[in-house]
Amino acid sequence: MCIMQFDHVAIPSNDIAKSVEWYQSHFGAEVLFQDKTWAFLNLGGTKLALVTPTQHPPHVAVKVSEDELTLAATRADVRIDLHRDGTRGIYVQDPFGNAVELICYPPGKTSYESV
Amino acid sequence: MCIMQFDHVAIPSNDIAKSVEWYQSHFGAEVLFQDKTWAFLNLGGTKLALVTPTQHPPHVAVKVSEDELTLAATRADVRIDLHRDGTRGIYVQDPFGNAVELICYPPGKTSYESV
Repeated sequence: MCIMQFDHVAIPSNDIAKSVEWYQSHFGAEVLFQDKTWAFLNLGGTKLALVTPTQHPPHVAVKVSEDELTLAATRADVRIDLHRDGTRGIYVQDPFGNAVELICYPPGKTSYESV
Repeated sequence: MCIMQFDHVAIPSNDIAKSVEWYQSHFGAEVLFQDKTWAFLNLGGTKLALVTPTQHPPHVAVKVSEDELTLAATRADVRIDLHRDGTRGIYVQDPFGNAVELICYPPGKTSYESV
């Protein structure tokens, strides 16, 4: 197993705009992507996702290549999700049920090529 | 409010050694600190804490200076905790109850000066 790159942490919010304002005003967070049910922030050098609990579980995410994602999905026998921002991913669970996302940024196909 | 630095994300585990082994074998995580009730890992460039649910809540943490921590603790009217690794911190809550730790690494007093 190679060493992978941490990508983001996602925490729940029932009012994305309210949470975004809180993380901006308290910690100087920068908005990378935002809509009514989801946001992606730069919180002091790491990406923080705000997720609607009915859409995504709280999770940590590691960045993988397209090949690594395909291999992991095959091994886990799960379907790869295509997200609104162009990223693709699957969820696995650690031994105590914490969700870990394997996320892939297909070159040229996401909203934030420079992130 | 200045822009602060993201420090770590903490997720729950009821068997620290088992979780450490899982994050090592799946993602090449590196152990920075570990005992029976807590661990601190380098997960792909970001610190991941494994916490016993009875000791710490799941949380994200931002790094602050000693002065910033003292000011925040005074404003929140809470006591600053001294941790086993020499760090000091307080918890605040975002609008939806997610715990956010403000953590300080007093120079020369922590287990990982180079982290």
